[in-house]
Amino acid sequence: MIDDFPDGAGLPGGLLLRSPIPEDQRRVLAVLDVWWAGFGGAAGSRERSLLLPRLFFQHFTDSSFVVERPDGALVAFLIGFLSQSQPEVAYIHFVGVDPALRRRGVGAFLYQRFFTLAAARGRTRVRCVTSPGNAASVAFHTGLGFQVDPGDAATADGVPVQQDYDGPGLPRVTFTRILTGPQEER
Amino acid sequence: MIDDFPDGAGLPGGLLLRSPIPEDQRRVLAVLDVWWAGFGGAAGSRERSLLLPRLFFQHFTDSSFVVERPDGALVAFLIGFLSQSQPEVAYIHFVGVDPALRRRGVGAFLYQRFFTLAAARGRTRVRCVTSPGNAASVAFHTGLGFQVDPGDAATADGVPVQQDYDGPGLPRVTFTRILTGPQEER
Repeated sequence: MIDDFPDGAGLPGGLLLRSPIPEDQRRVLAVLDVWWAGFGGAAGSRERSLLLPRLFFQHFTDSSFVVERPDGALVAFLIGFLSQSQPEVAYIHFVGVDPALRRRGVGAFLYQRFFTLAAARGRTRVRCVTSPGNAASVAFHTGLGFQVDPGDAATADGVPVQQDYDGPGLPRVTFTRILTGPQEER
Repeated sequence: MIDDFPDGAGLPGGLLLRSPIPEDQRRVLAVLDVWWAGFGGAAGSRERSLLLPRLFFQHFTDSSFVVERPDGALVAFLIGFLSQSQPEVAYIHFVGVDPALRRRGVGAFLYQRFFTLAAARGRTRVRCVTSPGNAASVAFHTGLGFQVDPGDAATADGVPVQQDYDGPGLPRVTFTRILTGPQEER
């Protein structure tokens, strides 16, 4: 159904989109170690495992995506869900794209796809977070129509930050994007 | 509504049950450090933060609980959700009880409360996981009617274990409990 994507945007040459299955969790963790060049060593790898426990690949598969090359290699993923207790909200938890495919629109494709899905299921806002040090991520999100939520601090560039948002020493920039309706439900 | 609990079980003297709010996340992380006696040091504390990101205290509040003393001190919590993509399943992600209150039935109360909620919302199975080293946790879960799922390894006590379940070096014992119906919906 990739050809039906409303904005006319597609995935680059031959990439395939599908919903994740539980066995994809270990594949995602393995490629993250490669894509992040082993950032943080064994502790970094373990932290990524804790951020992406298997439950996300079991219980939220209908609002998440993996992208593969025709040879089966995993090149991108998006893990998101529909908020259970905030019926107007959908949430994007974790997105990764193979560095070799960056700037090809794969990340934007996955976000747009999630917006379409969320709007079709009655959601009017998408929320997500990123780390304050990641200026590229902030630019990516604002480029997709996200607004930065107010903070209690700011980066050197003036981006609002919520200190200790996810725990002590885990500040976050948080984003909200309004889903404007029918055009995102096509 | 604690007095309505079908099994006649209640919370010990004056403890109060409510749904969590986002600000409870930092309170939960703080008490975990105390209850777990700082297990793992700063890295352990950080790992617990990653296991319990704020999103669980924002988007799954209607199937999660916190328990406080009349003076407001947090003494227990349960974070659970209704599976989005497996409509028959409810999932318990993380439970903690103040060690000073252990063996008073607080943990069992929270699980029973979650079973009742899950059954009322049409779920027929509850799933959760624990670490293989935690024999007390295995006994607790089987005592509540959970079955241990098959594994590809076993503990010294013969409990089935799924190796690398949540990532490399993160084996888990996984449990399923059948919700038997109306008696859990009272």
